[in-house]
Amino acid sequence: MSEREEFLRVARRAREAAAGLAPLPRAAKDAALHAVADALAAAAPGIVKANEADVARAREAGTSEYMIDRLSLSAERITAMAEAVRKVAALPDPVGESVRGTVLPNGLELRQVRVPLGVVGIIYEGRPNVTVDAAALCLKSGNVAMLRGSSSAHDSNTALVRVMQEALRGTDVPADAVQLVPGTSRESVKHLMRARGLVDVLIPRGGASLIASVVEESTVPVIETGVGNCAVYVDAAADVDMAVDILLNAKTQRPSVCNAAETFLVHADIADTFVPRALEALREAGVTVHGDERMRAYGDDVVEATEDDWYAEYLSLDIAGRVVDSLEDAVAHIRAYGSGHTEAIVTASQPAARRFVALVDSAAVMVNASTRFTDGEEFGFGAEIGISTQKLHARGPMGLPELTSTKYVVTGEGHVRG
Amino acid sequence: MSEREEFLRVARRAREAAAGLAPLPRAAKDAALHAVADALAAAAPGIVKANEADVARAREAGTSEYMIDRLSLSAERITAMAEAVRKVAALPDPVGESVRGTVLPNGLELRQVRVPLGVVGIIYEGRPNVTVDAAALCLKSGNVAMLRGSSSAHDSNTALVRVMQEALRGTDVPADAVQLVPGTSRESVKHLMRARGLVDVLIPRGGASLIASVVEESTVPVIETGVGNCAVYVDAAADVDMAVDILLNAKTQRPSVCNAAETFLVHADIADTFVPRALEALREAGVTVHGDERMRAYGDDVVEATEDDWYAEYLSLDIAGRVVDSLEDAVAHIRAYGSGHTEAIVTASQPAARRFVALVDSAAVMVNASTRFTDGEEFGFGAEIGISTQKLHARGPMGLPELTSTKYVVTGEGHVRG
Repeated sequence: MSEREEFLRVARRAREAAAGLAPLPRAAKDAALHAVADALAAAAPGIVKANEADVARAREAGTSEYMIDRLSLSAERITAMAEAVRKVAALPDPVGESVRGTVLPNGLELRQVRVPLGVVGIIYEGRPNVTVDAAALCLKSGNVAMLRGSSSAHDSNTALVRVMQEALRGTDVPADAVQLVPGTSRESVKHLMRARGLVDVLIPRGGASLIASVVEESTVPVIETGVGNCAVYVDAAADVDMAVDILLNAKTQRPSVCNAAETFLVHADIADTFVPRALEALREAGVTVHGDERMRAYGDDVVEATEDDWYAEYLSLDIAGRVVDSLEDAVAHIRAYGSGHTEAIVTASQPAARRFVALVDSAAVMVNASTRFTDGEEFGFGAEIGISTQKLHARGPMGLPELTSTKYVVTGEGHVRG
Repeated sequence: MSEREEFLRVARRAREAAAGLAPLPRAAKDAALHAVADALAAAAPGIVKANEADVARAREAGTSEYMIDRLSLSAERITAMAEAVRKVAALPDPVGESVRGTVLPNGLELRQVRVPLGVVGIIYEGRPNVTVDAAALCLKSGNVAMLRGSSSAHDSNTALVRVMQEALRGTDVPADAVQLVPGTSRESVKHLMRARGLVDVLIPRGGASLIASVVEESTVPVIETGVGNCAVYVDAAADVDMAVDILLNAKTQRPSVCNAAETFLVHADIADTFVPRALEALREAGVTVHGDERMRAYGDDVVEATEDDWYAEYLSLDIAGRVVDSLEDAVAHIRAYGSGHTEAIVTASQPAARRFVALVDSAAVMVNASTRFTDGEEFGFGAEIGISTQKLHARGPMGLPELTSTKYVVTGEGHVRG
């Protein structure tokens, strides 16, 4: 069987499973999630063994220790994965929720209710815990998960999916509700991206280039996630202590994530008091500042920023900085270079806050708070499948409701149109 | 300037206009809509003249009288268009609506508010009234409209857009908020479909082949609309009079629209009583039935159905009919051949209704009501930009809220993450 035929066989089984999974009540899905958690815990030694093969190959290929750490599974990490599955089971079921309901003038009862999307494709990189997280969130929301992880984690992912499928066999949820896309070639990703009609949505999780290639090539609708070139704007009316705290937190509390700040913009009227304090704090934290000419006037160690720096998602201890003449200039910078993820304003001025919120077109706008708060857990969603930076369907952190569609149910007593 | 350069120039002006339009309050947008309505009424003679040129060309090209009627504008039709614009002005503004709001445990205030999508591309066929309808709905929801009508209506659309842009010059809404895609070639549509980053969403309105080609070629996110292969399922427990009424209404009240029925499925247990009555009523209404063998046993004039008939969106006085052994078989037929638009069940059995609603995966499911009710006006939305048959973003009739995205606004007092 060719890889494409093998893919279609798996995708058709996924479609079939989606029809069986969609109408299941919450209790059946929660029982299945607990069975999955139990099975993962019980199978930990075998999963670790499979993971060791991936790790050994990665070491041979000269993979960085940072990436190896992301790839590695231990008994403790598997316990944590199982606990995460139980936490998903405890969340409310979004399916069946009425989001609108009314009786029309002619007596027809109209209800709009949440239903699963169907088959959700997830394309991700070398972290095997995503395999379990994504499967659990899909299952809870009544969706079949078609998983395509990095080939570097192939043995781990195969072991994890096998354990989950085996666990589902003893439950009301079809075992085919969790599927690994067959093959490890680049071609195998393409099959998934061209599976319109079989796969309802694709969610790429990973770096900018992965996401861009999925967006370009996919005929399946895509939800773009995660690229974050986030800016902190320090307004003329900012509290300087607060602004330093927020900038430092946004940049350094966890530099490798999408909601970390990559740019700071400072109103000229506050630059003399704010910038020296900010540069000192950033220097102490080991951050390299890439600044425009006005920023560089405040510090010899500020590197000259190029056009690329304004676009950069560093994910490292680097930040681009610029002095601007107005809130409007800060907004124009964000519009030109930002990724539409999260921007923050620090200001004591209510009109400035209101204006920034109105003009900035990003998934999240923070007023006197760190960009790091754009996160499903922080927002109280209990779990997150990713952070959408597009405008269609979902924007910002996506929880379980964002993994659903809706259906109109219209009930009459023989109503016909006149 | 090449057509592509011309397109990019227009698209960049649209993007610019979107930034100016998005934060405008309702009053400014409503005033602009009334100015547009006034201008359309005042410019009626000139618009009719431009339309006459389109109609003359269409006649020369041998266009059918049905299509000529859709293309033609009169003073009365222009008055109706202006009235429709005033009706849109009277609808509530979706922008700024809080769809979620909470205070997080750490004191951060979290609000999710509706914001415009940005630039909305509409691709449609030879009805010039869509030019004005779509522009009004986009403007009201704070979006810029990039309109690409049929080349057959080019002179009419050019005149209408010119009148609307002139009217906007006297208002707070940027004149560039309504744009016609330059050019009439097939290539000019492609520029629109490849304008990812400049255009936020494409809504194709028209036949199945237009929509399929947009879905296939577009890198801009697409909302699929309108293809309706709708089925009426007559359950074993149906009231026969009601079932005949609903079937007849769904098929014949307006056969050319997407929510008309194209298939009926009859439970074997009720076929002997229902089918003869149904065939008689359909015959009297001039409908040709394309039936399976079991259906054909009830009438000599039932034409043999081919596989294509089960897929057909006839939009004419034709219907496909089949006798099935169970509700599950009806659902399986719908799953195999339906377009996910609207399906109806006629039944007096509550469990059967519940089961049908749970198993059928369509944008709308009717219980004891005609499929013809799937419509923005009928649902009480006041206006409709189309009926989505996809699951992402919007499903079913799309009103003004479906032309928006959301933004999270998070307000703190110096909050940083620990």
